[in-house]
Amino acid sequence: MVEAAQPRFLRPLAAPGADIGQAMVFGPERALTLDAGRALGPWTCAYMTYGTLNAARSNAVLVCHALTADQFVIGHNPVTGKPGWWTSMVGPGKPIDTERFFVICANVIGGCMGSSGPAETDPATGQPYGLDFPLVTIGDMVRAQAMLLDALGIDKLLCVTGGSMGGMQVLEWAASYPDRVLSAMPIATAARHSAQNIAFHEVGRQAIMADPDWRGGRYQVEGTRPAKGLAVARMAAHITYLSEPALQRKFGRTLQDRAEISFRFAPDFQVESYLHHQGASFVDRFDANSYLYITRAMDYFDLAGSGSLPEVFLRSRTRFCIVSFTSDWLFPASENKRIAHALNAATATVSFVEIDTDRGHDAFLLDEPELFAAARGFLNSVAQEHGVA
Amino acid sequence: MVEAAQPRFLRPLAAPGADIGQAMVFGPERALTLDAGRALGPWTCAYMTYGTLNAARSNAVLVCHALTADQFVIGHNPVTGKPGWWTSMVGPGKPIDTERFFVICANVIGGCMGSSGPAETDPATGQPYGLDFPLVTIGDMVRAQAMLLDALGIDKLLCVTGGSMGGMQVLEWAASYPDRVLSAMPIATAARHSAQNIAFHEVGRQAIMADPDWRGGRYQVEGTRPAKGLAVARMAAHITYLSEPALQRKFGRTLQDRAEISFRFAPDFQVESYLHHQGASFVDRFDANSYLYITRAMDYFDLAGSGSLPEVFLRSRTRFCIVSFTSDWLFPASENKRIAHALNAATATVSFVEIDTDRGHDAFLLDEPELFAAARGFLNSVAQEHGVA
Repeated sequence: MVEAAQPRFLRPLAAPGADIGQAMVFGPERALTLDAGRALGPWTCAYMTYGTLNAARSNAVLVCHALTADQFVIGHNPVTGKPGWWTSMVGPGKPIDTERFFVICANVIGGCMGSSGPAETDPATGQPYGLDFPLVTIGDMVRAQAMLLDALGIDKLLCVTGGSMGGMQVLEWAASYPDRVLSAMPIATAARHSAQNIAFHEVGRQAIMADPDWRGGRYQVEGTRPAKGLAVARMAAHITYLSEPALQRKFGRTLQDRAEISFRFAPDFQVESYLHHQGASFVDRFDANSYLYITRAMDYFDLAGSGSLPEVFLRSRTRFCIVSFTSDWLFPASENKRIAHALNAATATVSFVEIDTDRGHDAFLLDEPELFAAARGFLNSVAQEHGVA
Repeated sequence: MVEAAQPRFLRPLAAPGADIGQAMVFGPERALTLDAGRALGPWTCAYMTYGTLNAARSNAVLVCHALTADQFVIGHNPVTGKPGWWTSMVGPGKPIDTERFFVICANVIGGCMGSSGPAETDPATGQPYGLDFPLVTIGDMVRAQAMLLDALGIDKLLCVTGGSMGGMQVLEWAASYPDRVLSAMPIATAARHSAQNIAFHEVGRQAIMADPDWRGGRYQVEGTRPAKGLAVARMAAHITYLSEPALQRKFGRTLQDRAEISFRFAPDFQVESYLHHQGASFVDRFDANSYLYITRAMDYFDLAGSGSLPEVFLRSRTRFCIVSFTSDWLFPASENKRIAHALNAATATVSFVEIDTDRGHDAFLLDEPELFAAARGFLNSVAQEHGVA
């Protein structure tokens, strides 16, 4: 049986005493079956909800977060002390309107914001899991979310949406639970992780594992933190979230607080200082082992596997809106088009939106009016179709 | 006065006892004036020559090497034990025909293959320079090469060529010594290092400096080697030398020696094993501090500075052939075109070749028939114009 939903207060990374929102604890009899062949239980799914579930339970919108995000979509993030990660898209009067829709977002399995993951305590040992935590997949993340929704009494989702790894979960949801997903809006994503993206992830993992403070993953027990390795991983990844033209426009070769190059190895250029800041602020809020687990889950993602992508969506009655950005080179428009083509081949209902911007992959998190218009229009239409006021 | 050219045997990184080719040692009275405001002297320029200088001394072709290459353009590299890095382009009967041309290549200042650099002994202390070596620029590298050519009695160069950072040196040569450079063929390069490229370099430097075995640059003295950090730097950089389509074509999501994913963090995918190999083989042949110095020199490269690029080449009588590759995203065709446009604006003689390939930046090192045809045609024409048989 599912235990009753109860707020829990777990140890956060940055702000001791801060809460991690709501959390559903599943007992060992409700273990999560993992693709790795293990069963995880007891386990916890930390989540947040925004807005109100209507009486018909028909206005639920599931938001799936990306690699380094969390369940705090909007409002105050108690761990980072900053606003949520998608305030441009979600909120009262926003495209995903919390006055109209009941928005749910769960921290992914393997994450570090309250859901079961390598940084959490292994109930079997009373010690942090570390690398004893089983490897997870996008499928596992979605199965966990489905169990959360079962526990919350939500059968159907009006829409599932998210960008990047969030988009992978959207596709997995539509493929695994076609009857529960009325509409799906995957953004800036792919149906399989590319060789180049696997390569970038491996560089990040190697940077973390090369840090002697990583201690074979046992840094929590040994009282260290692989901060330098994690910062390098974040810096490398952050470049891939942007675009060359945007970096040129924002920073170019402008120097940081100096008139001349210094002939030293300290940051001379603004773009270097910016990267350093990205690295330093990331290690304050994210767990290094979680970074290993979640990047691996993305690498493993290949929705069609040895089959064909149209087959995955055959007979799907879900309505799709695929969104991509012209300057996104991490999940290029071609990968998003591949999804749209497969859906077309499967005779699914699909619209494809390619937004012209120089802001690269991270455009999905930014102020992109075309994205907002597409999301608003799509959700309006889906809500109307399903009688959601 | 310049001391006579003499073979020197310096300690190599990989093969103890291997020689580093020829080396010119400049005494303190022939110090190298550096852009950093310091004078380096005594100093050494290690180099190799191939072919025979003709009686008129008119058939000299200077090849400038890229970030991690060296003076061993062809033949056997005594340090790596492998063939030279440009055997496809240079040699008897090759586009840069050593039966016709006298080919010179010098290890750059700041390098680690015999020229003065951070890994060499500081004559003032008898200890390795480490970070006491002054920061160098592309201009310094070229000035050093010009002094080498003076010492060798070569006034004019029939052609200066090279790819990537080699191309930067070609441009610097043409800008600083227009009367000595009859023709210039910069390949896959830029007249200024972009914000994105600076960012990637900074990630690599941070990876090296985060390695505790780097020891603030004093690893030689302390008997350590920042191998893990250097490997991570190389892995990140190596991705930028390729292209997404080529990685997809070569590796895709193919697994390495297994039928199923392992649910472990060891390399599952071929592309990961390939990257590991790139990292591991690099640390055997390259010095970590040199990597810091040379990447910094590239970052600092901005030929026009606060001026305009056409001004740099005004009244240039050098003939140019600019070569770029469609899938090169490190030094994209647009940056190469920018050079060609500037040369046009300066009314210089310039041809621009854009080669269609999916092999990315490293295409200049690979079997690219269009590149060979362009180089052969350009050199033939230049040789004919200047009466070289």
